[in-house]
Amino acid sequence: MIAPTPQMLRGIVRRALDEDIGRGDVTTQSVIPAEATCGGAIVIRSPGVVAGLEVARLVFHEVDPSVEFRGKAADGEAAERGATVAEVAGSARAILTAERTALNFLQRMSGIATLTRRYVAAVQGTNARILDTRKTAPGLRCLDKWAVALGGGANHRFGLYDGILIKDNHLRIAGGTAPAVAAARRGGPHGLSIQVEVETVGQAREALDAGADALLLDNMAPAEMREIVELARGRALTEASGGVKLENVRAIAATGVDFISVGALTHSAPALDIALHISL
Amino acid sequence: MIAPTPQMLRGIVRRALDEDIGRGDVTTQSVIPAEATCGGAIVIRSPGVVAGLEVARLVFHEVDPSVEFRGKAADGEAAERGATVAEVAGSARAILTAERTALNFLQRMSGIATLTRRYVAAVQGTNARILDTRKTAPGLRCLDKWAVALGGGANHRFGLYDGILIKDNHLRIAGGTAPAVAAARRGGPHGLSIQVEVETVGQAREALDAGADALLLDNMAPAEMREIVELARGRALTEASGGVKLENVRAIAATGVDFISVGALTHSAPALDIALHISL
Amino acid sequence: MIAPTPQMLRGIVRRALDEDIGRGDVTTQSVIPAEATCGGAIVIRSPGVVAGLEVARLVFHEVDPSVEFRGKAADGEAAERGATVAEVAGSARAILTAERTALNFLQRMSGIATLTRRYVAAVQGTNARILDTRKTAPGLRCLDKWAVALGGGANHRFGLYDGILIKDNHLRIAGGTAPAVAAARRGGPHGLSIQVEVETVGQAREALDAGADALLLDNMAPAEMREIVELARGRALTEASGGVKLENVRAIAATGVDFISVGALTHSAPALDIALHISL
Amino acid sequence: MIAPTPQMLRGIVRRALDEDIGRGDVTTQSVIPAEATCGGAIVIRSPGVVAGLEVARLVFHEVDPSVEFRGKAADGEAAERGATVAEVAGSARAILTAERTALNFLQRMSGIATLTRRYVAAVQGTNARILDTRKTAPGLRCLDKWAVALGGGANHRFGLYDGILIKDNHLRIAGGTAPAVAAARRGGPHGLSIQVEVETVGQAREALDAGADALLLDNMAPAEMREIVELARGRALTEASGGVKLENVRAIAATGVDFISVGALTHSAPALDIALHISL
Amino acid sequence: MIAPTPQMLRGIVRRALDEDIGRGDVTTQSVIPAEATCGGAIVIRSPGVVAGLEVARLVFHEVDPSVEFRGKAADGEAAERGATVAEVAGSARAILTAERTALNFLQRMSGIATLTRRYVAAVQGTNARILDTRKTAPGLRCLDKWAVALGGGANHRFGLYDGILIKDNHLRIAGGTAPAVAAARRGGPHGLSIQVEVETVGQAREALDAGADALLLDNMAPAEMREIVELARGRALTEASGGVKLENVRAIAATGVDFISVGALTHSAPALDIALHISL
Amino acid sequence: MIAPTPQMLRGIVRRALDEDIGRGDVTTQSVIPAEATCGGAIVIRSPGVVAGLEVARLVFHEVDPSVEFRGKAADGEAAERGATVAEVAGSARAILTAERTALNFLQRMSGIATLTRRYVAAVQGTNARILDTRKTAPGLRCLDKWAVALGGGANHRFGLYDGILIKDNHLRIAGGTAPAVAAARRGGPHGLSIQVEVETVGQAREALDAGADALLLDNMAPAEMREIVELARGRALTEASGGVKLENVRAIAATGVDFISVGALTHSAPALDIALHISL
Repeated sequence: MIAPTPQMLRGIVRRALDEDIGRGDVTTQSVIPAEATCGGAIVIRSPGVVAGLEVARLVFHEVDPSVEFRGKAADGEAAERGATVAEVAGSARAILTAERTALNFLQRMSGIATLTRRYVAAVQGTNARILDTRKTAPGLRCLDKWAVALGGGANHRFGLYDGILIKDNHLRIAGGTAPAVAAARRGGPHGLSIQVEVETVGQAREALDAGADALLLDNMAPAEMREIVELARGRALTEASGGVKLENVRAIAATGVDFISVGALTHSAPALDIALHISL
Repeated sequence: MIAPTPQMLRGIVRRALDEDIGRGDVTTQSVIPAEATCGGAIVIRSPGVVAGLEVARLVFHEVDPSVEFRGKAADGEAAERGATVAEVAGSARAILTAERTALNFLQRMSGIATLTRRYVAAVQGTNARILDTRKTAPGLRCLDKWAVALGGGANHRFGLYDGILIKDNHLRIAGGTAPAVAAARRGGPHGLSIQVEVETVGQAREALDAGADALLLDNMAPAEMREIVELARGRALTEASGGVKLENVRAIAATGVDFISVGALTHSAPALDIALHISL
Repeated sequence: MIAPTPQMLRGIVRRALDEDIGRGDVTTQSVIPAEATCGGAIVIRSPGVVAGLEVARLVFHEVDPSVEFRGKAADGEAAERGATVAEVAGSARAILTAERTALNFLQRMSGIATLTRRYVAAVQGTNARILDTRKTAPGLRCLDKWAVALGGGANHRFGLYDGILIKDNHLRIAGGTAPAVAAARRGGPHGLSIQVEVETVGQAREALDAGADALLLDNMAPAEMREIVELARGRALTEASGGVKLENVRAIAATGVDFISVGALTHSAPALDIALHISL
Repeated sequence: MIAPTPQMLRGIVRRALDEDIGRGDVTTQSVIPAEATCGGAIVIRSPGVVAGLEVARLVFHEVDPSVEFRGKAADGEAAERGATVAEVAGSARAILTAERTALNFLQRMSGIATLTRRYVAAVQGTNARILDTRKTAPGLRCLDKWAVALGGGANHRFGLYDGILIKDNHLRIAGGTAPAVAAARRGGPHGLSIQVEVETVGQAREALDAGADALLLDNMAPAEMREIVELARGRALTEASGGVKLENVRAIAATGVDFISVGALTHSAPALDIALHISL
Repeated sequence: MIAPTPQMLRGIVRRALDEDIGRGDVTTQSVIPAEATCGGAIVIRSPGVVAGLEVARLVFHEVDPSVEFRGKAADGEAAERGATVAEVAGSARAILTAERTALNFLQRMSGIATLTRRYVAAVQGTNARILDTRKTAPGLRCLDKWAVALGGGANHRFGLYDGILIKDNHLRIAGGTAPAVAAARRGGPHGLSIQVEVETVGQAREALDAGADALLLDNMAPAEMREIVELARGRALTEASGGVKLENVRAIAATGVDFISVGALTHSAPALDIALHISL
Repeated sequence: MIAPTPQMLRGIVRRALDEDIGRGDVTTQSVIPAEATCGGAIVIRSPGVVAGLEVARLVFHEVDPSVEFRGKAADGEAAERGATVAEVAGSARAILTAERTALNFLQRMSGIATLTRRYVAAVQGTNARILDTRKTAPGLRCLDKWAVALGGGANHRFGLYDGILIKDNHLRIAGGTAPAVAAARRGGPHGLSIQVEVETVGQAREALDAGADALLLDNMAPAEMREIVELARGRALTEASGGVKLENVRAIAATGVDFISVGALTHSAPALDIALHISL
């Protein structure tokens, strides 16, 4: 699993704090004495997979490096309703100012990890791995994808720069599969594999003949997927995509595909309910 | 309705594009000829309220100012399944490179606007207005809140800087309602109203006596809310919060509160299904 | 009093140092040995209210975290001519490089605090509080307003985003007081009070009827102010503005207004004379 | 005269607008219709030298490039009370949002230019040129120095990086004038002249013998200045500094010094009174 | 060939101009009248491959968008001594201010393209392609690699993020080839190929058995390379690296390797001699 | 010698690391255990002057502040083939991730310092000092010039802002030497010396008469240089420039010029061969 770099995390956390605090937390600064201290427990209010504790730690640290943050669970762990996953202690002003931003990160990442874990469980025992997509919240891709990995999923490419995926529209404009794959091989940087989107068995055959390293099976019936999986064995990886739901994911996995990508993991996961309980 | 400033939009769009494109769209650059052009239609695939067209326009514009973007619907309009809400035309490279980022914004904002519209419809005819919270995706608050407004909701404060909200924990640390409100009045900047969170009728009475401009009724039974609404009439605004669902929102509105705030609008709205159909 | 956030302070201090040091302090780097150390006393050379010590501390810290900075007075304290308000000790290069920038902050902020204290003293015993405006040095608003607060004044809104102030020109374009206030109530974010500028008693009446939370009395004669103060009692706060001088401020305060705003505090306060005395 | 680069101006203007507008001008956005237009005249309300028109133009342009800005006077021109120095026309929202920031720049720069012009007039007919210092508002040095130049003054070095000025404290730590000048000559970059601060005729002699290109005469009596001017003739430039006031500046100039530097130009100039008159 | 994105180019060009111009081109601003115009020809003074014209165009454009820049050759073209590769016309101040920065880009990129072209010519007719490395000037990688591509070379991965290259030291710490490749396959993102550095035929065999997509042959004798090329045929790509010189590159290519990477292309290419001839 | 400021160094190092690491070092993160540690020796593989150790230290520190970096040589020292100039110890992930960036800085700076040392040696015993130019890698000027100083050379101006150099083209547009020098004297900031480029003895005479502080002798024959050196003695410094090579630099120095500037120091110095040897 590849976590975001410290630089990326810091940038995201600072922007989030700046967005929320702006020129100052006027309530806390005017109502809470500078010297007041308190403790707090971060509590899961509905069962799920916790993710984002390291981000929450950084949020409190950025607001005030002297706030103590003690993880009581690890990112990627399943937590019961009522479980305390972290404790904080220190300046009351800092803790109250950081609270909402820390929870916003935790709730979103835990929501994604929780939904991913359900998909992963649904395909357990098959060959298929659950994969994310680029359908992430703008500016939060590295966290969204980290949450997927913490939920047990695998990461697809991170952007348009670190993987070649020749889609339907590329093929139409490029004038066919063979010239498109050849152009990508010649012009793309050495080190990226080439994946081609296909909608029929015939297209899959073309893509394999053109030397594709992986196939993206777009919205295909299980029978067709199965046929392509056979064709591709030993020559290219296969990924099913489109219309994937918890109800049908196991049937798709049963076709033998290597990967199943699910946009909903990152664009429609409901937040996990998490709260900060303050103790004086 | 207060839309984000051009500066804020531009910053968010540029970061999103940078995150996705990084050092270059290796597929498009190697496979699509520089001079190729295409058209595209942005199509709604499940009914909802469209929001984010102005952001999508900016995404295409930032990738290539010569791409033409024609809105066929306005932000805040309800759209049927299959409706085309915008068309693009121009450089095929630019359109394919911008596609995912534009859709990510549109899908998120339209999802929020669509859910908000359902809450607004549920309280229609009552005094209550649906309000958002600070439970937004980090870095995207101005878009999340814009989407709420486009869906018909009202905006609460944007951050810790532009509204004084004295919560339970502030009251406990500050040593009571009267000193907390007095401190906020004295120390907060002139121009912000003061809202106090209350959990009982007694606390509401205290807050009103202390001169609060608004009350936040936290997770309260309808009967209690009703009683406080009576007490506050002509003295302070009332806002219900906590545990609000589509199923119970109308019952809450019936208590006579001025506002009902709903965190789920921005932390758990599923994305609206929207696609770009390319035409050569 | 709401001090600037650490992030804002750091940004301002870094830009100031960058502006002064650029690619390097060529005198100090070439003339002073790297290992030389010295002490220094920050001395007030004309009596006044000291403000900006925390900013000065940060300036030295940013240039070299090992420089020791000991405050001998607190921000907001009155200092006699000759008083030492802080001492520094450490690297001679760092101290000489930071000197001018630290003093520039101190002199400006202390100048503002000193002038504010004179206005505050002039209205002592009345109901009126001295208020700042948005007439600040571009980029330094949070320091200018902090200095006003340290001098004993109160802060008006910080920008166009955290307070609604409907001025003469807004009223003319919006087509009158009632529609303008209604539009602000409906479209502005929940949490901001609404202030209306008035030039006559009649306008004040209209604004009160429209539900304004505060009135800005622009360049008005004391008799009129007195009349409006009566009208507004218990309904809205009153602020006098325009043409305020040390000579007439007490007469204005005597009208019973809640606030008197003074642009000169931040746009025309002369710098306080402050120096750094180096000791080897 | 060396105006700030477009990059510097743009950075300063954007930061100023961001500071004032933040997440949006809530009054104007909610009260003024998007399609409303207006005109405006920038009017001088007390006589002085106008400076900052080009900055004001940029402020309006940054808020909305379609606002028309017509200069009716040139930066550096003297203006009578009541003179219109520029006119604007366009979107009412844009003009009202930009107003305060544009005026803040104009008032500060015109205040500096006006005070400079008075000093320049006071030494007219002598050899001396009025010079600014590094005692500027942090972050605004390039504007403060530009205003001095527009007022008829000359610019000293812009920062610690583009001029070598060996002050009293450098000399003490470096162990004397000769070694200090030699170190600066050897270690400083080729292209900068070397100025040495002196407090006595003896020190001036030492500095000249050490090869200084210029002398800074710190707080010296006229007789001494005169003596040093004689010594330095043809060998080094002379600059008087410290305790300069409008009352004594001509006497100082009469000593024959080449430059007189005045910190008050930039740290204590009162703002010039300038307003924007809106016309519908 | 994948050119840098407009965003990357603009960032690099602005930083370069800022570095050179700083607070202003004091010579040009004081000596050249604002209204003066001139023309200029960019002339190659020793034969080579021109690269960087599009960057130079952007340099002039950033300094002054009204300067006209006409390419007379295309990036990647070979130019004779004395050839004019571009002409500029417009503001004399802008052209003189931009001159050095534009030439610095052109000279560096053309130097790299010219050296690359010599390596490419040396292996002409063999299977091998010349490849760059990550040994680039810090901050200029996208230009250095673009210049290699313009010279006819191919691009290796752009950074540590878009290609998996398991080197000697990774293998030692990871405990062998098989576990390292398995870990990369499991933990790395889907879409990147896996390359393994080998120093012996035995190691190459291990890497192939572990499923490596490509082998890096480090400082190997031709006979060994040949043997590994045979082993890898149809299973993995081969790249020779280390100690490559113009004198021995053809012998290396003759071993049948797919790629030969040459650090000197970007860390030791001498600048091509290019000048700007001004015409009034 | 004037080293870059910590701020400049940090900015350059962070950009370089960001360029190389991007969204993460996928090899190291997936293959190397988080807890693995190692040591490393930075070894010179061909004799030269080491430069950039302080930059390399910062690179490792930025990636992981807990990595220990021990210099075994000082910047500016000559090192034999095989010499260890620094050692690192700590997290294996951090060391492997930082390696290439650290070496890229070291190799470039040491290459420049090594070439400079050869020029300096070639003129030893003469009056002339070797000077750098503005022909540096864009964005790296402060490092390139630091490396020249570490190699024993002197620094010319750092940019267009900190030295006045009136070149041939300025003179032609300004209408002659006398008006150009006068304009620079009047309009340029106080504190910069004025250098004039000359191509003939006649022009040198004009420049001296106009009061130039230094002359740039462009591509001149030794006899002419000698004549100008005589003319300028005691009046202006002289700098030879253009066509300088290791073969002819001593002959140029023998003319008595004060400075000889060499563009090749920074635009064509080959990298010094330096490696990191890892030890487990």
